[in-house]
This record gives sequence, structure tokens and C-alpha cells, in this order.
Amino acid sequence: MRHNLRRTCLGLLIAMLTPAAFGQPAPPPKPSIAYGEILKESKPDEWRQPDPANTLYMDLQSGRVIIELAPRFTPLHAANIRTLVRKGYFDGLAIVRVQDNYVTQWGDADGKKPLPIPGRLAPEFTLSPANALPFTPLPDGDVYAPQAGFVDGFPAARDPATNTAWLVHCYGMVGAGRDNDVDTGIGSELYAVNGSPTRHIDRNTAVVGRVLKGMELLSSLPRGTGEGLGMYEKPEQRVPIVRVRLAADVPERERVHLEVLNTDSAAFRAIIEWRRNRHDDFYKVPAGHVDVCNIPIPVRSEG
Amino acid sequence: MRHNLRRTCLGLLIAMLTPAAFGQPAPPPKPSIAYGEILKESKPDEWRQPDPANTLYMDLQSGRVIIELAPRFTPLHAANIRTLVRKGYFDGLAIVRVQDNYVTQWGDADGKKPLPIPGRLAPEFTLSPANALPFTPLPDGDVYAPQAGFVDGFPAARDPATNTAWLVHCYGMVGAGRDNDVDTGIGSELYAVNGSPTRHIDRNTAVVGRVLKGMELLSSLPRGTGEGLGMYEKPEQRVPIVRVRLAADVPERERVHLEVLNTDSAAFRAIIEWRRNRHDDFYKVPAGHVDVCNIPIPVRSEG
Repeated sequence: MRHNLRRTCLGLLIAMLTPAAFGQPAPPPKPSIAYGEILKESKPDEWRQPDPANTLYMDLQSGRVIIELAPRFTPLHAANIRTLVRKGYFDGLAIVRVQDNYVTQWGDADGKKPLPIPGRLAPEFTLSPANALPFTPLPDGDVYAPQAGFVDGFPAARDPATNTAWLVHCYGMVGAGRDNDVDTGIGSELYAVNGSPTRHIDRNTAVVGRVLKGMELLSSLPRGTGEGLGMYEKPEQRVPIVRVRLAADVPERERVHLEVLNTDSAAFRAIIEWRRNRHDDFYKVPAGHVDVCNIPIPVRSEG
Repeated sequence: MRHNLRRTCLGLLIAMLTPAAFGQPAPPPKPSIAYGEILKESKPDEWRQPDPANTLYMDLQSGRVIIELAPRFTPLHAANIRTLVRKGYFDGLAIVRVQDNYVTQWGDADGKKPLPIPGRLAPEFTLSPANALPFTPLPDGDVYAPQAGFVDGFPAARDPATNTAWLVHCYGMVGAGRDNDVDTGIGSELYAVNGSPTRHIDRNTAVVGRVLKGMELLSSLPRGTGEGLGMYEKPEQRVPIVRVRLAADVPERERVHLEVLNTDSAAFRAIIEWRRNRHDDFYKVPAGHVDVCNIPIPVRSEG
């Protein structure tokens, strides 16, 4: 933790692991390649450009948060959010809640802004049928679900017995806040997980996407103190949202061109294995396992 | 997520769950009690006061971070840290690294301050023998270890086959930074997990304790941008540590009197069950499971 990640020592490591004992059968190769090397050796077609019609630019005074929506899982919420964004609903609203190790949440604190969408929406907490989804499963199990893995670049879980799947509440995932009634989450109030995965919320809200860039702008905000929930108690503590736009509505030359590694690619499978078994000079005991919320899904600037 | 935690609705819920069907056998009681109620009904002897000789007050300009050391697991590190604190080693040093969704780390960025302890220390990454530890196991398994649970108020894992146990890298856990050599983590550079559990570090560093209070002061700091590791690139970005003291060295009347719920108590077992199966008005699908890093270990002000 002092210098451990500063040096990847890849060359040295590869040299050390190269079997040198003459006449001996070579041991099986170790998955010793480093993260940076995996990305470097990935192929162009292993990356995708997020759909601009499902990409949000949320501009704060501190910078831009880029969110990719997950229309396969929450199409009605994605449609609502697109409408809200295009009508300028979020512009001038604010981050109203930052609860430590829980969520950063934004919306209309006073509930006074007219909604350009209906006040109720079908829940979209799970997706079914799901057994035919392009699901990249993880080999080490999951505490909460029969299977965990990735779909479309998002962390997910599924239950083959019930033919359902759902996105899971890892760090940086974005969900739709709601009241107690399941149809009150309409996309006008959103939250992002800012600490430990809140997996107990899985299947209880619509998970609408993931922060691709700028999550640190949401996680480093002062914590609120209100109601034991991290609400900002004074209006002046709220963090204004300058505006939210769809990438598709921004001129091409002004867009932020990001690429996300496909989670069904060989390169991503190498990342899973790298994360399961670290073999650099720092790690002495490879974990041998990995959970769905402990694997970075690589995002890079295009070109 | 909008108002869900504002109302516990406990009374109503209990009323709704009370079996009313005349002449029918009562169904098994549901674990419907709320978090606040569990704490309220806990007994005084289910709480403990952290040992002042193993409690650190780290004062920042923004407030106080209180850390409880874990001497059962890392006694040599605890001894080193006590010496460092008593010699004023940390006073005037700084938080030098805040990597998003990883760690907040503090120590001597320039490596110039004389160390009042030797520069090497036995690793203490795992504890053995461990099978006789007072271990409160969790019922839902763990992705990384044969068993996960709690020891002495800390999240832990163990492997009965090898008779070893170790503290795990949940949010707010504190570890000793090191260089690549395993004996270079001596307690003079510490980190706290500020995002998702970094379970891949388990058994690779000495986990020395846990933040009991003030973790939000470490998690809400601006992220550093250096070396891809969150290092603060300019010295003026570093967050000064005003001073660190042992609670035992602070006059009794100036101490912060905290109590921590015993993790082998009936009240804590009720909290585990509450966390596994939420039955308030917000949660429609109880998770049915819980992982070791998703259970709050209650801390309260004494009296």
C-alpha cells in the first residue's frame, strides 16, 4: 500500500516466472499479466462506445459525472430519464443527500418542480426471462444470488430457477429512489452507491445504470447530517446540478468519447482472472476468488 | 430511497405481523424488529467500552477520527502504533493519498521523520491457531474464505482447515501500508478502506483495527490524482494530522466515551438477522443473505 501499485514490475515478473529448469516440463502458466498489460493487449473490437442516447452528462460545478443507462434491464426508467433530461428537469436541482458508506442522491428536495412524466411507473426491479442473456458468470459464487457476473458491461446476478436477472448495487451503480410503494420510483430521483455494495437493496429498486466517469465527484462530497440518512439539512448545503444532458443531444465534437471494455470479451475474462489471483510483487497470497463488486470494469478515453 | 429510512413503521409492522387468525397455529415469528429497536432493547452488558490503551484519537482540522486497534490479531503492530503515537510521530504528518473506492492513507510522505521504532516488523497477516477464537460465524458463506464472521467486534474470516483467521478489508477497516517486502509494514503508514471492500488485500497486510467514529472525515476528502493511486500531487493538497493520541493518555473527562455492541451478543445476532431479511415497509424482497462487510457494527455514545 505504500508503493505497491506504483510499480507493476511486469517484465521482471514474467522473467521470474519463465520456466528455466532444463529438461523439466514447464509448469502451467500463471495468470501473471498485469491490469495495464491486459488493457494494452486488448483488441479494438473488445471495446464499445456507450450509446449516446443512453449516456448522461451530469454537470456539477466541480466537474462532469457521466452515467451510462442500462436499457435492457430498466427500459421504462431509461425512457423516463431521457424525457426528464430533455425537458431540463434536473437542471438547477441538486444533490440533496450524501449518506456515508451508502448513497449520494439527487432530485427535487422540495418536490415543487413540475414533473413532465407520470408519477407512477412499473417497477423493473428484475428482468425475466433472463436465462438467454449474454451473461458472463463469475466462478466463485455470490453470497446473495445463485449466480453473479456481468451483462452489457454492468454487474448483475441471476437465478436460473426463476429465469430472472437483475443489476446489483456495486459501488458507482445508479438506482431510482422511491417511496414505499414500488411504482413510485420513476427516475426523477436518482442515487449512486458511494461505499460498500448495498446488495440488500438489490431487487428492491430499479437499477438504471452506472457511473462511467466522475464518481469521485459524488463520493467525496461532505456527508449530510439529517434524519440519520445523510440529508443535507440546510438548502445551502445542497450541491447544485448545473445541468444534465444526453450525450446524443450534445454536438459530436463536444462529446466525451469513452470506451468501455466488453464484459464478454477475452480481455475482460483476463481481468477477472487477474483480480482473482494477483501475482505482482506486492501480493503474497492471491485471493483465489473474486466477487462481482470487486472487479473494475475498464473505461478509457477513445482513440 | 426517497423516504424509506425516515420511517421505521415498527409498531404498524408488528401489528400487521401479529397472527390474528382465530384457532390457527401461529406462524413462526418473523425477524421483523427494526435496527433501532434492537439497539433499544439490547442489554447494558451486551456493550463494551473499547480499551483506551487500544483506542486512537486522530485529530484533523475537520474533526476527530477514532480508531480501535485489534491487538488480538496484530499485537506487534498495536505496540508499534502505541509507541509511535506516544512519541508524537503522527503529529504534523498528513493524509497523503485518497484513491477513490480504495483507500485513504496517511503517514510521512517525504520519509524524513525519524522513526522511534525499528524499520521491520513480523507480518501478522493471519492469526494461528484460530479455531478456538470467539468467532460469530455468518450463515450465508463468503466468496473469499471458508467462513466469515466477527471476532472482538471486527469483521473476520477463518479457515478451519489451516487453523487460521484474519481480519477482512471492509469499509472503515484500517491496515498497515507496506512496501513489497512483507516485514516493511510497521504501523507508521496506515490506510482505511474508503469504498468497496478490498478483500483481495486480505492476508497481504496487517489489519490493525477499525474506524469507530469519524470515517466520513476520511471518505469525503478530495481524491488525489497522482500515479493512478490517488496520491496528492502537491504538498499543499495533503490533509494535515493535527495530532494523534491514545485515549488512555487523555484525561478521563476529556475522553470520548463510546460503546461498541459485542459481536457475540444476542443483540448483534438480531442485527445480523435484521440485515439478512428486512421486513419494513420499504423492502419488498428480503435479501435472505448477508455478507460480512454489509453489517453495521453498532457504536454509540456511552450513557
